Amino acid sequence: MNWLDLFSDFDGSAGGRPLYRRIVDHLAALIQGGTLPGGTRLPTNRELAALLQLDRSTIARAYEELISMGLIYSHVGRGSFVCDAPQPDRTDAWRDRYSNYGGELKQLMECLPDPSVSSYPGAVISFAAGIPSADSYPEEEFAAIIKTLADGNAGALFKFSPAGGEPTLRKLVLEHLAGRSLKASDGELMILSGSQQGIDLMSNMFLDAGDLVVTEDPTYFWAISNFRAHRARIVGIPLDEEGIRLDMLQAVLQKGRVKFIYLMPSGQNPTGLTMSMERRRAVLELARRYNTPIFEDDFSGDLDYEGGPLPPLRALPGAQSLVVYQGTFSKALAPGIRLGWLVAPAPVVERLNFAKRGSDLSTSSLTQTLLSEFLRRGSYGRHLERINALYAARRDTMLGALERSFGESGVKFLRPRGGLFLWMTLPEGMDARTFLSFSEQEGVSFSPGDICYVGKADPCTLRLSFIQNDTTAIEEGVERLFAAFRKYRRALGVQTIDKTEPEHVLI
Amino acid sequence: MNWLDLFSDFDGSAGGRPLYRRIVDHLAALIQGGTLPGGTRLPTNRELAALLQLDRSTIARAYEELISMGLIYSHVGRGSFVCDAPQPDRTDAWRDRYSNYGGELKQLMECLPDPSVSSYPGAVISFAAGIPSADSYPEEEFAAIIKTLADGNAGALFKFSPAGGEPTLRKLVLEHLAGRSLKASDGELMILSGSQQGIDLMSNMFLDAGDLVVTEDPTYFWAISNFRAHRARIVGIPLDEEGIRLDMLQAVLQKGRVKFIYLMPSGQNPTGLTMSMERRRAVLELARRYNTPIFEDDFSGDLDYEGGPLPPLRALPGAQSLVVYQGTFSKALAPGIRLGWLVAPAPVVERLNFAKRGSDLSTSSLTQTLLSEFLRRGSYGRHLERINALYAARRDTMLGALERSFGESGVKFLRPRGGLFLWMTLPEGMDARTFLSFSEQEGVSFSPGDICYVGKADPCTLRLSFIQNDTTAIEEGVERLFAAFRKYRRALGVQTIDKTEPEHVLI
Repeated sequence: MNWLDLFSDFDGSAGGRPLYRRIVDHLAALIQGGTLPGGTRLPTNRELAALLQLDRSTIARAYEELISMGLIYSHVGRGSFVCDAPQPDRTDAWRDRYSNYGGELKQLMECLPDPSVSSYPGAVISFAAGIPSADSYPEEEFAAIIKTLADGNAGALFKFSPAGGEPTLRKLVLEHLAGRSLKASDGELMILSGSQQGIDLMSNMFLDAGDLVVTEDPTYFWAISNFRAHRARIVGIPLDEEGIRLDMLQAVLQKGRVKFIYLMPSGQNPTGLTMSMERRRAVLELARRYNTPIFEDDFSGDLDYEGGPLPPLRALPGAQSLVVYQGTFSKALAPGIRLGWLVAPAPVVERLNFAKRGSDLSTSSLTQTLLSEFLRRGSYGRHLERINALYAARRDTMLGALERSFGESGVKFLRPRGGLFLWMTLPEGMDARTFLSFSEQEGVSFSPGDICYVGKADPCTLRLSFIQNDTTAIEEGVERLFAAFRKYRRALGVQTIDKTEPEHVLI
Repeated sequence: MNWLDLFSDFDGSAGGRPLYRRIVDHLAALIQGGTLPGGTRLPTNRELAALLQLDRSTIARAYEELISMGLIYSHVGRGSFVCDAPQPDRTDAWRDRYSNYGGELKQLMECLPDPSVSSYPGAVISFAAGIPSADSYPEEEFAAIIKTLADGNAGALFKFSPAGGEPTLRKLVLEHLAGRSLKASDGELMILSGSQQGIDLMSNMFLDAGDLVVTEDPTYFWAISNFRAHRARIVGIPLDEEGIRLDMLQAVLQKGRVKFIYLMPSGQNPTGLTMSMERRRAVLELARRYNTPIFEDDFSGDLDYEGGPLPPLRALPGAQSLVVYQGTFSKALAPGIRLGWLVAPAPVVERLNFAKRGSDLSTSSLTQTLLSEFLRRGSYGRHLERINALYAARRDTMLGALERSFGESGVKFLRPRGGLFLWMTLPEGMDARTFLSFSEQEGVSFSPGDICYVGKADPCTLRLSFIQNDTTAIEEGVERLFAAFRKYRRALGVQTIDKTEPEHVLI
């Protein structure tokens, strides 16, 4: 290749677009036009920089961009090369072959808000995700355990683990559950690669197209999307201050065959609501009466800031054969560890274990061994004490800040006793998606509530996660949120300030 | 509880069943009869041993058994307790609710051979599973890396990872693939929690009930089971010495709409066969002609003992839009690490990433970071050299031993150039399941071939894994296998020894 010739019509001094971008366009045109065929070796950064009399970092940036466009690739020590001629467009032979599930996914993907395109200059404070912040992990103890494990029989950390999980971890998880008054036998337990896997396995095992699933409404987005993608019909039942509404639940159960009821009794996602003990008993009683099984997702059951966790539905008398129960270490411990558990009647577990082999064969031995050792040392109990105190303080900070800022604004919010989330309802006439745009401009984000509804969405609702940030960031984030709120209100032309008392209203 | 009274009719001296077993029966009757209600605290080992004047280890064994029966549970430091009254039988409210998938699973579960009930007194040598042995892992380097990571920013090891995988790992996997002449852009890649997940995601995304999938026949059991469980129709195409038979493949593609062709071109499971270059080109050409996409499972593509790995189908010109390609670190590196990759057209990857979020949200950060560092150091390349030499020696040892023992027996076997497996065919009139029973009595096991067939199974076939044992154990295992073979043959009344030459026949 005569690179000088190929760049003869390149004008580095032309204004407008950044220099690296113009190099990208120039090379992209040469590649896409076929002048540079697949496999062509490009000049090194140094060579092209010398040729064009430009800075090497400009060339490096251009090459990076071309790599991300899929036009060139680089191989350490060998250089950069043109990729094989790309197809004329991004379409593919697979396009018209999606299953119904694959087709549904596309629609679900479009529900999620676009990634922020905020012009906010600094770091955005995110209240969007229910993901614990790194400062909450038992980082030092994990590191110490890892080092001890590496000094021991390291080979065991990489061996194949049985589909149902490592025996030691299984035993310790059963003990942990017994401590929450949930008694289960070994045959009723399986270890999951995180509790989303439990939802997927349960959907696979129990849902055919058209099957009826009952959920709280609103409920967990990734449960809705999984059930929907399996083409189940979902009936959402609203919540009152104690949990899922009994009258409406009964009406649905009476009418016909429901495959299962999916419930999050503690720190419900997205509302943060914890079901009262009385409601727990009543729901189980209804389920027994109509012989309808319950799929209990106790994703944040270990997080409770007022008197300790309530017993799960599965721990109540008569629940053993009716309730499939799952939990996770992702919320109270660390999101990247990807470990959860599921308790079900032994015959269900037997099949779920088989289905898990078809789904991901087994779960990482390394993470299971790490967690086993953490549990064996009794560290999880101590960690829960610490983390419950930490998250309680974050919750209180957020509630306090919201009350100070939004006290007279007509905004309503729930006071969660546990979990990760705080549910907020804007005054009539505002909507959370628009509020999100205003908020992103102010440097704060959250999750709009509409994606969590099964039935008609309340566009005024939104979910704030209070576990992701420290108290300073929470205070700052709520200030930004209120600044966004005032701008939004101003844009709507609302001049009068609503003087009603702040409400801690339960939906 | 007056335990003396409760054991008044217990006769420790009665003959027949073992003592611990009789304690189990006695306590089980008390629990199931309601005399010991849920929550009752049992005597400690020491107390009951003293009471019954028995050894403490006998009591411990009885309690263990009761725990595994789900009748009691124990809590460290608190003692052992009776579980809540179990249901009258093992049935459950979920029983009649399985989906079609859940129903299919049950049938598939019944295909798998029962776990060995061999009376063999020593350790059984297993040639059954395609799972690398612990002595092949880069254990020391893994341990060293883990320690370094633990000393660094340990928090990062437990954070939430993007569904598509850690950026550094993604970049390094693309580089590894480029080294195998497979060029892909960042948007075409996703990281998997092991390659079984790829099969599951692809099934979910592309298969509806009744859809047609073409596979090699025989093929990977867990692929068949996954496709079947999704209620796809599978058409299996036999193999010849170069790979899947072109004439039969063409006949099927001609006839109608095939969703995809699932292929393992290198070290095919279970036959160990590696598709020739010419056949690779021809298969791709056929797929292009009939516009039928290929799902290429390159699970052992990095393992080749004769001249290095052949390029995958995806690396051939014209394959980019047609081939979904996946690979795994479970075979060449360590089975417990649970990491694989998938390359597909960008729009397919976009949806698969979304489906992965619905399936397990994301993959462990810890294992991804460990693997990234291993790749970054260039250690994977060095490991592959070592492991290919090690496995080549094991293959050669097994081939040599088989030839010496079975040379004149009428048994046929394939000589694999790569992968993990060696495919064996017994003489007409024998079958592999019966041979397995004989073999287990001799202290050796393998995988019967029949589970791997899509169409009519050849009952004479079986699969031997040559990577799981060191050369000494392989020699010993093959001797045992031949001892079992002679006993089986004697049982059949075959006295004459077939004097034909040993054959290295390709199926």
